[in-house]
Amino acid sequence: MPVPVGILTVSDACSRGLAADTSGPALERLLIDKGGGHWAVVARLVVPDDKQLIAAAVREWCQPLGAAPGGAAGCRLVIIAGGTGISPGDVTVEAIEPLFSKRLWALATAMVIGSLTITPFAALSQVAAGVVGAAVVLAVPGSRKGSVENVQQILSVLPHAVDTAGAQDGTRGLHTS
Amino acid sequence: MPVPVGILTVSDACSRGLAADTSGPALERLLIDKGGGHWAVVARLVVPDDKQLIAAAVREWCQPLGAAPGGAAGCRLVIIAGGTGISPGDVTVEAIEPLFSKRLWALATAMVIGSLTITPFAALSQVAAGVVGAAVVLAVPGSRKGSVENVQQILSVLPHAVDTAGAQDGTRGLHTS
Amino acid sequence: MPVPVGILTVSDACSRGLAADTSGPALERLLIDKGGGHWAVVARLVVPDDKQLIAAAVREWCQPLGAAPGGAAGCRLVIIAGGTGISPGDVTVEAIEPLFSKRLWALATAMVIGSLTITPFAALSQVAAGVVGAAVVLAVPGSRKGSVENVQQILSVLPHAVDTAGAQDGTRGLHTS
Ligand code: NA
Repeated sequence: MPVPVGILTVSDACSRGLAADTSGPALERLLIDKGGGHWAVVARLVVPDDKQLIAAAVREWCQPLGAAPGGAAGCRLVIIAGGTGISPGDVTVEAIEPLFSKRLWALATAMVIGSLTITPFAALSQVAAGVVGAAVVLAVPGSRKGSVENVQQILSVLPHAVDTAGAQDGTRGLHTS
Repeated sequence: MPVPVGILTVSDACSRGLAADTSGPALERLLIDKGGGHWAVVARLVVPDDKQLIAAAVREWCQPLGAAPGGAAGCRLVIIAGGTGISPGDVTVEAIEPLFSKRLWALATAMVIGSLTITPFAALSQVAAGVVGAAVVLAVPGSRKGSVENVQQILSVLPHAVDTAGAQDGTRGLHTS
Repeated sequence: MPVPVGILTVSDACSRGLAADTSGPALERLLIDKGGGHWAVVARLVVPDDKQLIAAAVREWCQPLGAAPGGAAGCRLVIIAGGTGISPGDVTVEAIEPLFSKRLWALATAMVIGSLTITPFAALSQVAAGVVGAAVVLAVPGSRKGSVENVQQILSVLPHAVDTAGAQDGTRGLHTS
């Protein structure tokens, strides 16, 4: 059975309808085309660069299935594209780090290492990874190219990451952190 | 004179006698075979995945020699194998980070970089490095292969690391942090 | 118009006149020779390994131009050389991290990755990068060779880093963090 995935696009322009979200669809295509049948995208949302809105979406999606009435809960993987630059308006990392029961620092490092082989400007992306509830949450750059390249770096280990992060008492972090 | 080393194996199964500790002995052999005569393992312990027990062992071993009556104090290098995965039960990093007077972030990064050249699953290990008292403390994966590979990545700089971390007022961190 | 840069050398020996500061001038030469005309060093200072003095210089230099009467304010890039080792007396990272409105973690990682290809001892340098006010602040090793090598790793992305970090409401961090 495929693993439920949420894809959150963070962009002021897209959320106002001034630009089309190309990263979200590109990430979904990556998971379908290269994901070996592991993944099913069950939630998609575009929000502006707003800490509260970003955190609220991640919290809702990472709740256990059935916990959020009518909501898209039960995601085991959440990919956030955008808001990871280094300008003052980029707040994705600040929004999600307080939700992490575990920071997946090596996973973020693997994304940076891989992306630096493609472009030195990867040094200016604040990618992040961590566990929220029983889900793995990734923050990657908002550009279509950058978002896909970063997830591709670690795609092969994501099934094991999700299995492990959500093992046994995997929802504990959501309630005690 | 060889530098006193403590090796702590973190494993529920090993601590209950349900599995043999192969990582601890493998790390000791690595230090003897490839350590250039620098190291003498003076303390070995197996504990379960328990924050308090992990922290207590590290604190005791990193005290200055003579400070802990009857204890294996005076370690200048402590290697912890295990509890560095990303499941909710993996608590080694959470146990030891509060003890660090200095996070040796680049040292941890060097382990990750090196290990990623061996396996992409290194992205799912939460390795860590820091200074406790006058000692360098490393946390590496619990598997025999993973533990040895990570320490090997940085073995050549460990003598200088220990010399520097414990220089002059090197025990200050233990008491003031 | 060239971007104003401050170069801070952190060294007990240099601050007492017991050694010449070679890193500061080498970094200035690097920016002039390889910086494509982007940079103008407007502030230079040597301080001892003292948290308060390091933080005070960075805070002053990163204030908006005109904010500090008679001071060398308005820097958009600050490079700190020294105090990034792992001995108890190395306090540069501890001094500056509390000033960061944003940690530029991937930028620091890029310096470490690049430097590790030159020497394994790069694992023992606590380099750091972050945003203070509208400025990008880097902490690199105090040796002439180490300081230059680390900045060289990321020199090509620094103009974009400074443009982005200081965009729009780029001074906000200084006053609200
Ligand atoms: Na020093």
